[in-house]
Amino acid sequence: MRILVLGGDGYLGWPTALHLSQCGHDVAVVDNFARRQYDFELGVESLVPIEPLQTRVAAWQSLTGRSLGTYVGDLTEADFTHHIIADFRPDAVVHFAEQRAAPYSMIDRKHAVYTQVNNVVGTLNLLYAIADLGRDIHLVKLGTMGEYGTPNIDIEEGWLDIEYKGRRDRVLYPKRPGSFYHLSKVHDSHNIEFACRIWGLRATDLNQGVVYGQQTPETTLDDRLATRFDYDAVFGTVLNRFVIQAVLGHPLTVYGDGGQTRGIIDIRDTVRCIQLACENPADRGEFRVFNQMTESMSVKQIAETVAECFPGDVRIDHLANPRVEREEHYYNVTHTRLLDLGLTPHLLSDTLITSLFEVAKRYAHRVRAESMRPTVNWRAAASPTNEAAPGTEGGA
Amino acid sequence: MRILVLGGDGYLGWPTALHLSQCGHDVAVVDNFARRQYDFELGVESLVPIEPLQTRVAAWQSLTGRSLGTYVGDLTEADFTHHIIADFRPDAVVHFAEQRAAPYSMIDRKHAVYTQVNNVVGTLNLLYAIADLGRDIHLVKLGTMGEYGTPNIDIEEGWLDIEYKGRRDRVLYPKRPGSFYHLSKVHDSHNIEFACRIWGLRATDLNQGVVYGQQTPETTLDDRLATRFDYDAVFGTVLNRFVIQAVLGHPLTVYGDGGQTRGIIDIRDTVRCIQLACENPADRGEFRVFNQMTESMSVKQIAETVAECFPGDVRIDHLANPRVEREEHYYNVTHTRLLDLGLTPHLLSDTLITSLFEVAKRYAHRVRAESMRPTVNWRAAASPTNEAAPGTEGGA
Repeated sequence: MRILVLGGDGYLGWPTALHLSQCGHDVAVVDNFARRQYDFELGVESLVPIEPLQTRVAAWQSLTGRSLGTYVGDLTEADFTHHIIADFRPDAVVHFAEQRAAPYSMIDRKHAVYTQVNNVVGTLNLLYAIADLGRDIHLVKLGTMGEYGTPNIDIEEGWLDIEYKGRRDRVLYPKRPGSFYHLSKVHDSHNIEFACRIWGLRATDLNQGVVYGQQTPETTLDDRLATRFDYDAVFGTVLNRFVIQAVLGHPLTVYGDGGQTRGIIDIRDTVRCIQLACENPADRGEFRVFNQMTESMSVKQIAETVAECFPGDVRIDHLANPRVEREEHYYNVTHTRLLDLGLTPHLLSDTLITSLFEVAKRYAHRVRAESMRPTVNWRAAASPTNEAAPGTEGGA
Repeated sequence: MRILVLGGDGYLGWPTALHLSQCGHDVAVVDNFARRQYDFELGVESLVPIEPLQTRVAAWQSLTGRSLGTYVGDLTEADFTHHIIADFRPDAVVHFAEQRAAPYSMIDRKHAVYTQVNNVVGTLNLLYAIADLGRDIHLVKLGTMGEYGTPNIDIEEGWLDIEYKGRRDRVLYPKRPGSFYHLSKVHDSHNIEFACRIWGLRATDLNQGVVYGQQTPETTLDDRLATRFDYDAVFGTVLNRFVIQAVLGHPLTVYGDGGQTRGIIDIRDTVRCIQLACENPADRGEFRVFNQMTESMSVKQIAETVAECFPGDVRIDHLANPRVEREEHYYNVTHTRLLDLGLTPHLLSDTLITSLFEVAKRYAHRVRAESMRPTVNWRAAASPTNEAAPGTEGGA
């Protein structure tokens, strides 16, 4: 298949592009390097050094003989989005190209607006390009489990069969997300479902859990193929951050009681899930949703698992929770559709965590410990006149 | 109370500002005249001539002795939005200031993106301004019944108490809107509910039915106080358009079978509902939703009602439906909360329709009949390279 990976220079986009290429698909990567730019803005960087996209692509070519196309540009520019679809003529488009950090979206008004405009407009432009150029192109869109919030009923896969006052309907699962970022994904999902309905597009919305891990069989072939490993309080996901804190001898910082539960998934399963979604496309006009996670754990459980696995003393500290979220809640998620397609999950294991400790130790000299302290508070807002100047606002 | 009416120069914003002023509130109007600009773009205009805002305000002052403040600017400019809240210090903000026509949002990609960015960013800026400057300011936001779509279960007021697999929750009512415009309102509602949750804001989301009528007790005091009367296929609402078609001796144009059912409301009830919402604010942290409609009718029933009322022959024509929507569906809407606050509805009556015939006859010489033909097709898309040049795209 011909597969276009939008956001293909990022933490998950890059390993996904490699995996799809390794599986024999004809892959091109699209990116505007916004993710690398956020690093400059926030004064942080990936723990594991990453190469420029051109170097990565050349290394992949020299190691495997497989080529990856590249397009550099921004999906919010409609002409560019139209061009990449017209030029590459993909069978499937995998769409990672969104601002993806909840804390980043909550820094202040400007970051909230940026996140929603960037994500929603990029996706709208993509929907129009597909509608204009090839309505059979399968859109595989990355969403997040965080869109659902923590309802007191089971979380189903995107749709809910309900009975109400003796009548029945199948409705979009009602969501109650926890940040302006998560909200942007909910907006996307609504827009995509509508596009499927009016234009007969094919779409798979992957509501992904928190991803952990840094290595896939493809990225470990060569250091030049490494993907990002973020541990800062804005872009770092919780398990990766705990691993680095353990290695540095810092306490693991749990927000609040740590009872808040997350769906989680190993990075190796992420790339496999995307492959399965691409190779088994949605029907014409179908908006289908998969919950792309393999198990649920509370933040406290994740911290305890990392601590137990670490060969040495680890302390767990509870910080005031900067987010507004329930810390004790029901959480039961249906996630069978990817299993039905053939996913064999890597559940969180000591082996994986130990391998992450090795990565963290190798690059421990690169850690900026201060960047792990949470600085974005959900309860604050920021007036235009108080907004920090560019370059200083990130962690202020 | 001090009440700021955003979009206060528009079809409903203007009569609402007058009504609130008449009730003794201290009112200021905010507008960027986008609605007047759409007329130039589409080559249409209000059937009833409307005065510039400055003339309207001066007329109201000279007739009643009551003054209306004015601010001219765009809510998508954060500094402006912050300024109007800081300067006027409202107790309530009534927010009409959005692009509000489904067909306009469906013209092409550019209009879809414009509608969502304009509506979502304006509202985000407003939420931040309120969070920064006064979290007790009550936001009264105009939404639409079209957000719900046509579910096979009863439509409740914004929230739904469900039982699922033996567990219970109260969830945001799952919506399935029918245009990129309607979707923008769904995005707004999600953003506002979140702002109430994290910042403790007070918000009332008014999901309004299709409004008909053109006169309120205040606007009829003087011709200079008249509000818009739109009848074109983009901004004209269905009943108003049928009235003009009847007066002109044209067939009433029903899309498809006409079985699609709408919640409807008289313009006099709209202004009263806004007053009731303002005078009975939401609690701190509460996101409440009222279904602002007084009865349900199918499009065919509306056409038949207008035809029966007209003193002369009227033909009803069925056009191919340019929208993607169900033409036969269940539709049962709960709308008791505004009644509980004291609304006494004006149900659709021969008297109202007859008075609209008089308005239409008086200005029949101004009608541009060609603008009533639907030109926007939901099933089409429009690539960037095919997008019409500014000024010609509206009805193309």
